[in-house]
Amino acid sequence: MNDVSRRDFVTTAAAACSVIATTHANAAAPQSSKQGPGVYRFRLGSFELTALYDGTWFRKIDGAFVRNATSAQVDRALTSAFLQPGIVPTSFTPLLVNTGTRLILIDAGTQGQLAPTAGFLNESFAAAGIDPKAIDLILISHFHPDHINGIKDQDGKRLFPNAEIFVPEPEWAYWMDDANLSKAPANGRAPFLNTRRIFGDIASDINRYTPGKELAPGITSIAAFGHTPGHTAFAINSQSHALLVLSDTTNHPWLFARHPEWQGMFDVDGKQAVATRRRLLDRAVVEKMLVTGYHFPFPATGHIVRAGAGYDFVPVMWQPL
Amino acid sequence: MNDVSRRDFVTTAAAACSVIATTHANAAAPQSSKQGPGVYRFRLGSFELTALYDGTWFRKIDGAFVRNATSAQVDRALTSAFLQPGIVPTSFTPLLVNTGTRLILIDAGTQGQLAPTAGFLNESFAAAGIDPKAIDLILISHFHPDHINGIKDQDGKRLFPNAEIFVPEPEWAYWMDDANLSKAPANGRAPFLNTRRIFGDIASDINRYTPGKELAPGITSIAAFGHTPGHTAFAINSQSHALLVLSDTTNHPWLFARHPEWQGMFDVDGKQAVATRRRLLDRAVVEKMLVTGYHFPFPATGHIVRAGAGYDFVPVMWQPL
Repeated sequence: MNDVSRRDFVTTAAAACSVIATTHANAAAPQSSKQGPGVYRFRLGSFELTALYDGTWFRKIDGAFVRNATSAQVDRALTSAFLQPGIVPTSFTPLLVNTGTRLILIDAGTQGQLAPTAGFLNESFAAAGIDPKAIDLILISHFHPDHINGIKDQDGKRLFPNAEIFVPEPEWAYWMDDANLSKAPANGRAPFLNTRRIFGDIASDINRYTPGKELAPGITSIAAFGHTPGHTAFAINSQSHALLVLSDTTNHPWLFARHPEWQGMFDVDGKQAVATRRRLLDRAVVEKMLVTGYHFPFPATGHIVRAGAGYDFVPVMWQPL
Repeated sequence: MNDVSRRDFVTTAAAACSVIATTHANAAAPQSSKQGPGVYRFRLGSFELTALYDGTWFRKIDGAFVRNATSAQVDRALTSAFLQPGIVPTSFTPLLVNTGTRLILIDAGTQGQLAPTAGFLNESFAAAGIDPKAIDLILISHFHPDHINGIKDQDGKRLFPNAEIFVPEPEWAYWMDDANLSKAPANGRAPFLNTRRIFGDIASDINRYTPGKELAPGITSIAAFGHTPGHTAFAINSQSHALLVLSDTTNHPWLFARHPEWQGMFDVDGKQAVATRRRLLDRAVVEKMLVTGYHFPFPATGHIVRAGAGYDFVPVMWQPL
């Protein structure tokens, strides 16, 4: 149909009914059914950082997601964010730091070993134009599977073969301890066993750090115990710009920033986790630091403000570099 | 350096000083200096929608961005969102609707003809795996340059050669009227002239619709006058799911949702723009509709809630399809 006859046709159709332009189609375009690449870059002083989306675990609450809140309270927090009740969408966003001379990855994603809706980190690396083999250093915040599984694929092959791996010493001490494994209840053994699966045969390659230490120029670890016994946050500083990597001190912000007193069922020491959360969120507020949260909605980057008795997360505005 | 000697080296370095792991680097990885692809997909009933980021114009306020607010008030609104005072980051996010049989683009981006930090729509199309030639239909909300410039490149070549173009009749009547052009002040002539540049030689190809009409099955135009005399919003409905395309009824949400009474300097009829904004935002709240806003922070999709005397924008949570 050429331009003139198409125009005539549309004019006729418009005259004939109130629905116009419905009958012309170049082709039935296939729907993609695939999310766009989850890559968000930002500058921090002379550093370039990249938030890399690994996916989202749609985690059913089953009445036991928060120890000191009812399911109805959790559902209210979810629906206030226009999320479905009964399911906490837990996303995973490792953070890559390019200092100009080194590529440093903070936490390693899931490699599809946790939920079918997560495991897109390799695609995000590809979309970012980064070869995982180029990673120099991996900093691990703690040993929950969604942070360490990405070190190896399901066949045990290392995905970042040239990266040194640094882990918190107290995390190693807790999860690798056979007495702790044997004391664990039946439904609590999995992370102990998973830790052995990931680190057992490469134990001599793993560098253990004491939280509090500077791990690379501008990257300092921060003891943030409670969520797990050696759980660690990080401060990244470059040219007077500062970022606080919250790791898992605050899970989904609509739940745990809004309700900082809530103790997640996954916190090894709930009371300590709450105290740590308040300390870090207060620091972010007072110092107006940019923050990232591993489970914050992608791009998982923004600021923290006080709101009522809790806090709000203000997402960063997507922009060109 | 093999694994063992690297480990020895690191152990030695760790013993020597509190900064560890600083001296090993596989390579100086180049920084990318480029934002990730801005492609966000979501489902609405049987439709698949894609928000496509075109870029951000860092618009200097120069004391005259809001007619009925002081620069200090505008700066407070900006800094409350951790944005720089004095500059409104105005992003552009055209919306693609795949109905299953047709590809429909709502507004056309800037094609780099407005600011050097915008004009990435072609890259977003590529990252989304969509050929602009496959677009069947373009729906234009209004004739400001950032919505129509993308129809042609700077050489006048049409970028969506197979798309029918639908524009609001009252928008055509206003901007194509030579009496209105001649009445315009010197600094207000540009959009009149730009409208002629874009549409002048293809005028006979342009289909004009009366806002209120259904333009395709499930896509209904909504008269949303004020910002410009024919400014149009859209309601998209599929299988009882509903999306309200706000177009420019609300520019940056931290300014104009928070302060719905503010009249932008760019509003042709500021009072009418405010009334339209309240009507559409109220509808979004009451009907709990998903909304998109052309100038909302990418992915420019979420919900509206009441907050004090104004409204807040709750961004959608990035997730797999």
